[in-house]
Amino acid sequence: MKPYQLSITEASRLVASRELSPVELTRSVLERIDEVDGRLSAFVVVATEQAMEAAAIAEKEIADGSYRGPLHGIPIGIKDLFDVAGFPTSASSKVRVDHMATEDSACVQRLRDAGAIMVGKTHTHEFAYGVITPTTRNPWDLARIPGGSSGGSGAAVASGECLAAMGSDTGGSIRIPASVCGTVGLKPTYGRVSRHGVTSLCWALDHVGPLTRTVRDAALMLGVVAGFDPRDPATAEVAIPDYTDGIDAGVSGLTIGLPTNYFFDDVDPQVETFVREAVAVLAANGATVREVEIPYAQQMMAVEFGLIVPEASAYHQSMLRARGEHYQDDVRIFLEVGEVMLASQYLKVLRVRTLIKEAFREAFEGLDAIVCPTLPATAARVGQQEFEFPKGVRKSVINAYVGHSAPGNVTGLPALSLPCGFDSNGLPVGLQVIGRPYDERTVLRIGHTYEAATDWTARTPSL
Amino acid sequence: MKPYQLSITEASRLVASRELSPVELTRSVLERIDEVDGRLSAFVVVATEQAMEAAAIAEKEIADGSYRGPLHGIPIGIKDLFDVAGFPTSASSKVRVDHMATEDSACVQRLRDAGAIMVGKTHTHEFAYGVITPTTRNPWDLARIPGGSSGGSGAAVASGECLAAMGSDTGGSIRIPASVCGTVGLKPTYGRVSRHGVTSLCWALDHVGPLTRTVRDAALMLGVVAGFDPRDPATAEVAIPDYTDGIDAGVSGLTIGLPTNYFFDDVDPQVETFVREAVAVLAANGATVREVEIPYAQQMMAVEFGLIVPEASAYHQSMLRARGEHYQDDVRIFLEVGEVMLASQYLKVLRVRTLIKEAFREAFEGLDAIVCPTLPATAARVGQQEFEFPKGVRKSVINAYVGHSAPGNVTGLPALSLPCGFDSNGLPVGLQVIGRPYDERTVLRIGHTYEAATDWTARTPSL
Repeated sequence: MKPYQLSITEASRLVASRELSPVELTRSVLERIDEVDGRLSAFVVVATEQAMEAAAIAEKEIADGSYRGPLHGIPIGIKDLFDVAGFPTSASSKVRVDHMATEDSACVQRLRDAGAIMVGKTHTHEFAYGVITPTTRNPWDLARIPGGSSGGSGAAVASGECLAAMGSDTGGSIRIPASVCGTVGLKPTYGRVSRHGVTSLCWALDHVGPLTRTVRDAALMLGVVAGFDPRDPATAEVAIPDYTDGIDAGVSGLTIGLPTNYFFDDVDPQVETFVREAVAVLAANGATVREVEIPYAQQMMAVEFGLIVPEASAYHQSMLRARGEHYQDDVRIFLEVGEVMLASQYLKVLRVRTLIKEAFREAFEGLDAIVCPTLPATAARVGQQEFEFPKGVRKSVINAYVGHSAPGNVTGLPALSLPCGFDSNGLPVGLQVIGRPYDERTVLRIGHTYEAATDWTARTPSL
Repeated sequence: MKPYQLSITEASRLVASRELSPVELTRSVLERIDEVDGRLSAFVVVATEQAMEAAAIAEKEIADGSYRGPLHGIPIGIKDLFDVAGFPTSASSKVRVDHMATEDSACVQRLRDAGAIMVGKTHTHEFAYGVITPTTRNPWDLARIPGGSSGGSGAAVASGECLAAMGSDTGGSIRIPASVCGTVGLKPTYGRVSRHGVTSLCWALDHVGPLTRTVRDAALMLGVVAGFDPRDPATAEVAIPDYTDGIDAGVSGLTIGLPTNYFFDDVDPQVETFVREAVAVLAANGATVREVEIPYAQQMMAVEFGLIVPEASAYHQSMLRARGEHYQDDVRIFLEVGEVMLASQYLKVLRVRTLIKEAFREAFEGLDAIVCPTLPATAARVGQQEFEFPKGVRKSVINAYVGHSAPGNVTGLPALSLPCGFDSNGLPVGLQVIGRPYDERTVLRIGHTYEAATDWTARTPSL
């Protein structure tokens, strides 16, 4: 096993005990990028020089006895929607051709303080407004999409181009690439992690969080990036626990909700089989499984898009006027649609959202989490427009993917995706665990229990 | 002194010691209503029978040794925007002609649980969308307005038709009638008191709170109505202190901000004199007074109306379609304007609001409160359109009143109004104390200190 294939948990143990140098680890990752990124195109920019410098500093600090903790010397990728001082935040868009960030985003600042090494900035669907990430390919099948919008982060983490990466999730943009690339992805509770310095798509739905190889790694990353930030008014002063503490306590005594509707309505049969097997694994490990009905299933997508579309247009308005021709067609059309939405329509959507949040609180009574497929299908082929589900139901790729993700964004509840199988095409299948507000610990505990009982996670694609 | 003239603090002492029966007190209030409400028209409906029944029950409970606390047996009025089971919530509108509430609003429920007696429902400017309350007159001068939208509550508390009343405040609707009627009015922090069961004007700005005769009474009322309520998503799980605890600790050691702009830009000279004298009283009592600049002064009213106008239209849309002719002209025109506002415009207003809140947090650094005039002028005459300020500046009544109130709504900061003088027409002048989030205790402490050092509060108008 080469260093780039390690999890953060494994690598940090070796780094802390000085069996592995941050320089060696970072070099391994950069060599892996050299080896595969020509085919994947996960990175907008690779910060080779800066990463090697930071690795040398980390090596020296650790040699001097100043070990900062489990992210010290760990090479990570940053979605190119996050500001990193001294780099443009391209948002994978021609619109941002002359952009330059002068200050780190809150997450990057916290990761740097924890000693992490930034190896580069990963591609996003343009301005995070889509689920394809057309610049980038899926490491399990180069003819397929890596999902999006954090497609570069998903492809990079899965293929060993970094040990973890930051993503953002407005309608599944962490969980979709995590699911189709076979990584772990965690969308934390709305307000848990500061979005300061991250280009906004829809402030009512935007979340930021990590993509990692293992659930425990997600816990380590969350522990570093979580916390109140006065610069993000959505963040709250809620205590930050040690998210790895109790992660291996098992699921005995927990009650897990299994949806009777919505998440299993139109699902690829192979995906459904893997997810139901995963639920059986959790039950065999002592969890009580109870059926639960997902409320407001019919309104979910209207609320998701009813919030994104006008908010994105408000944010982009002056840029659309100034350089509309530089947007890709799909994004420009969305932005133009949003310009004519009325305030009264938007406000009604906000009110339905309030009802949905309330209904989910009730649905969660007596439950510790809800478990379901992250997505109804695996990775689409490049250029594929639709999925066909049983009974001849056809859905666009974006509606199929976002439909399963939207409940987590609309409610703000924490949602984890982790691999739970590979379909007959060798493509990863994702299991989604949705938890109570600010209860990422239970979500991670369930994910870790499943991960420890199976061997689906942290696999490396042949490239 | 007749029982109806008592403060809650005085009355509750007598009730608790069984020197005054709730029946006697309630009868005194109802007789006062009979005596003066023909001229004031503060009440939409007087619940004579229900009040006397409730008073008899309270009397028996107290005689049996089950004293519930300082609101037990105290007659109060409820703005007719709050649901009271078994009564229509008319919102002083013909649109609501066939309305009936089947359940108490959260505040009414809490007040009932505390033993308060509902004597009736007080007039509001139609749907709280205005500052005139045209149904009702000012008890200090029947040719003048009582302010609004909680004009009925202001007139009723000032004139002895109840010992306290509930109001709501979206752009000053508690503080404006409190100021022009010479009562105390408290708009608590956004999220401090549940709005469940209160007809919404603008959920981003709506607050509910008490109008009382003294600052200590406002503390007693707030202690009963404050608290988290899952039915109002804006409320937060913040501990509820005893708001009377420490209220007479004085202001020594506190630092009070005196605005150099905005609140003194266009103000009636008599009002300014009384307010500056009030600040001198606080300084003489040991407070440190420091100048402070109000941020975003130019944007304040655009944000206030930019939030109210579209939100009110979204709320009223179906009613406006079904029975638009039943609205008063002023309200109908506002509602029609709001229908054509774009979502992108509304969203920009929300973003400016975020900047304003942040700027106020910075402005408050080192300050315990900001003190300023509640309003730039005293009560307008019925039919008066404008005020004329020094240097020939003319402002509409609504803009003048709402301008001084809006900072409290836009920021969500707690704001108290209490009397600090009477102008040459014998009309009350209000002093406003704006505090830090959830720090109503300091606001009340400052107000109480001023009140105890002067004799402006709890005066009864001759009617």
